Amino acid sequence: MRAVTTHQGRLEVAEVPDLEPGPGQILLDVLRCGICGSDLHARTHGDVTADALAQMGYADFIRSRDTVVLGHEFVGTIAAYGPKTRGSWKLGSRVVALPMLGTGDGVQLTGLSPKAPGGYAEQVLVSEAFAFPVPEKVSDDHAALVEPLAVAHHAVRRSQIGSREVAVVVGCGPIGLAVILLLKAAGVRTVVASDLSAGRRELAKRCGADIVVDPRETDPFDAYGERRGHLRSAQALFDLALGSMRAARSVPGLPWARLMRLAEKAGQVPKGPVVFECVGVPGMIDDLVAKAPLRSRVVVVGVCMEPDAIRPSVAIGKEIDLRFVFGYDPAEFHEVLQWIASGRLDPTPLVTGTVGLEGVADAFADLADAGEHAKILIKP
Amino acid sequence: MRAVTTHQGRLEVAEVPDLEPGPGQILLDVLRCGICGSDLHARTHGDVTADALAQMGYADFIRSRDTVVLGHEFVGTIAAYGPKTRGSWKLGSRVVALPMLGTGDGVQLTGLSPKAPGGYAEQVLVSEAFAFPVPEKVSDDHAALVEPLAVAHHAVRRSQIGSREVAVVVGCGPIGLAVILLLKAAGVRTVVASDLSAGRRELAKRCGADIVVDPRETDPFDAYGERRGHLRSAQALFDLALGSMRAARSVPGLPWARLMRLAEKAGQVPKGPVVFECVGVPGMIDDLVAKAPLRSRVVVVGVCMEPDAIRPSVAIGKEIDLRFVFGYDPAEFHEVLQWIASGRLDPTPLVTGTVGLEGVADAFADLADAGEHAKILIKP
Repeated sequence: MRAVTTHQGRLEVAEVPDLEPGPGQILLDVLRCGICGSDLHARTHGDVTADALAQMGYADFIRSRDTVVLGHEFVGTIAAYGPKTRGSWKLGSRVVALPMLGTGDGVQLTGLSPKAPGGYAEQVLVSEAFAFPVPEKVSDDHAALVEPLAVAHHAVRRSQIGSREVAVVVGCGPIGLAVILLLKAAGVRTVVASDLSAGRRELAKRCGADIVVDPRETDPFDAYGERRGHLRSAQALFDLALGSMRAARSVPGLPWARLMRLAEKAGQVPKGPVVFECVGVPGMIDDLVAKAPLRSRVVVVGVCMEPDAIRPSVAIGKEIDLRFVFGYDPAEFHEVLQWIASGRLDPTPLVTGTVGLEGVADAFADLADAGEHAKILIKP
Repeated sequence: MRAVTTHQGRLEVAEVPDLEPGPGQILLDVLRCGICGSDLHARTHGDVTADALAQMGYADFIRSRDTVVLGHEFVGTIAAYGPKTRGSWKLGSRVVALPMLGTGDGVQLTGLSPKAPGGYAEQVLVSEAFAFPVPEKVSDDHAALVEPLAVAHHAVRRSQIGSREVAVVVGCGPIGLAVILLLKAAGVRTVVASDLSAGRRELAKRCGADIVVDPRETDPFDAYGERRGHLRSAQALFDLALGSMRAARSVPGLPWARLMRLAEKAGQVPKGPVVFECVGVPGMIDDLVAKAPLRSRVVVVGVCMEPDAIRPSVAIGKEIDLRFVFGYDPAEFHEVLQWIASGRLDPTPLVTGTVGLEGVADAFADLADAGEHAKILIKP
């Protein structure tokens, strides 16, 4: 079959061996496969990521010396069932699947391991246990977006944001846009989005962001007007604590328990907004820690592959939470599919281009430009 | 009055101007004042911390050019009330107070600002609103420990640790030991403590740690035997997810909602232990992120003053939470005092020495050695 192979950072359309579904596997004819930021990263920083993953106990992430087929955001039709499958869906049905392939050699990350070729190809293998049928109403394009939207869904769920808290999304590439879509689908009322690119700011609006800023002109933490009690200054916090304690103690005959409840309130730092870091370049985390209000939760969704510098003393003084997020569970993946089918989630603004296998190298160049593109889909 | 002054890193016993209580202030005769790791830091890294605090909106942290009186962990007897005080406690009564002084120039950090001289002195000023009377049963030594124990109490509360979760305390200096005491007082059943020093490991045992390790010999994350489902390897997680999904799907006639609940379980990373970073030197955070099980919460209590390097890709892959903590609220401060009075908290092992004002310089040298000492108290 034909596929786009990657080796030492070079992309090439090539004839590769046909795939044979093994036990528990299904062979799919690929309808669409998205190009992910991780693919761009993996191509150039694969070895750094492979080292990081090896340290956490996954030994088979692609290295620059490997020749691999990328692609882990795909939809396809069932071409054949392997042995030991249930065969519950008809041949030709559309399915999406988590890009995790059960093999004799453990589960492998599809499109990110030499042991599980990805969706930049005419065909791809998936595990039947991780596959879900695609409802009629969901287009091929939208089905291919389930994977990146599941990443965003997981990030929003893990942030534990309440609908009345303020979300600040920094970086409106595909993942930032997906986070905006999922925040709005989750009912968050105030979503502030920040990006340097005018094109991406326009996409952020189309994805439902309530306030969209160019960070060179407007500090996103100043953009939501009404302060909701967020504190930007330690001095303000100290003064607030003293004022509250004075007020509490001036009440004659106040029972001790009630005084202590007021004392607890006096010292409580009002929570800051929930910040989604969706840029993933060195320096972003430290910059957000420095700029965010006291007690902000910073959810790190953008994957920064290089080592990064932070100032723990600033993070400590502001009591910042850094929550690093990765992947999703099968239920989150399926829920996104259902939300698209029901219309709760409309990912139309995400797709800004479609190419054939021959167009992949140019698409990588366009995406690296970080200009006006969001998601480019491959139609093999 | 006599005090220990600090200027350009040099400690000196000197005659300084007498203090006069201003509006809302009480003048105390100091009974005891603890020497804190922050004092050692402030003496050598004051300018870095001052810059960090200036960035978060507190402009008056000490700089090396200032001449200041350190000391923010103290107990004293009431010598005089200033104007606009309630005067609720008799002259001569013992009180402890949050080291935050209301001044005409906003609230200042006592012993950490040139505008609020600290407790390395015969007398100190406190805000009446932040003061609490010391119950009879609490010794002078123990009363001086309320402040550092409140830091630990706040850290444990903010970690949201459950009594059946495993706590791993890395670094058994005064703050690590205080965290161990508060974890046990909070009812946490399994507290693992790790330190390079045999003397400190002995103190950790006396503070109630259940398992104490030398990290050169035993990985603290291997020390608690029964694994409680903690995962150290991504491969194990991927394999577990596939196995669970296969099992869920093999049940004939399983309703979709139930399947999805099982799917959610299948993908859920079992939470790791709650790790308390109480060392505060560069490299510790990254080291713990690399070694801790998947989904660990790492509570950063040790203040690392220098910029620090982390690898976000490892933290992301393991879905680590980094929770930075600072200070406490007045209710937490008071609760510690009550727990000491009731016997729920016995901080006796913390105190390893007492000196006069003349002994402070030597005590700093001893503490910098990080050998066998925990807390040294000053008795002016």
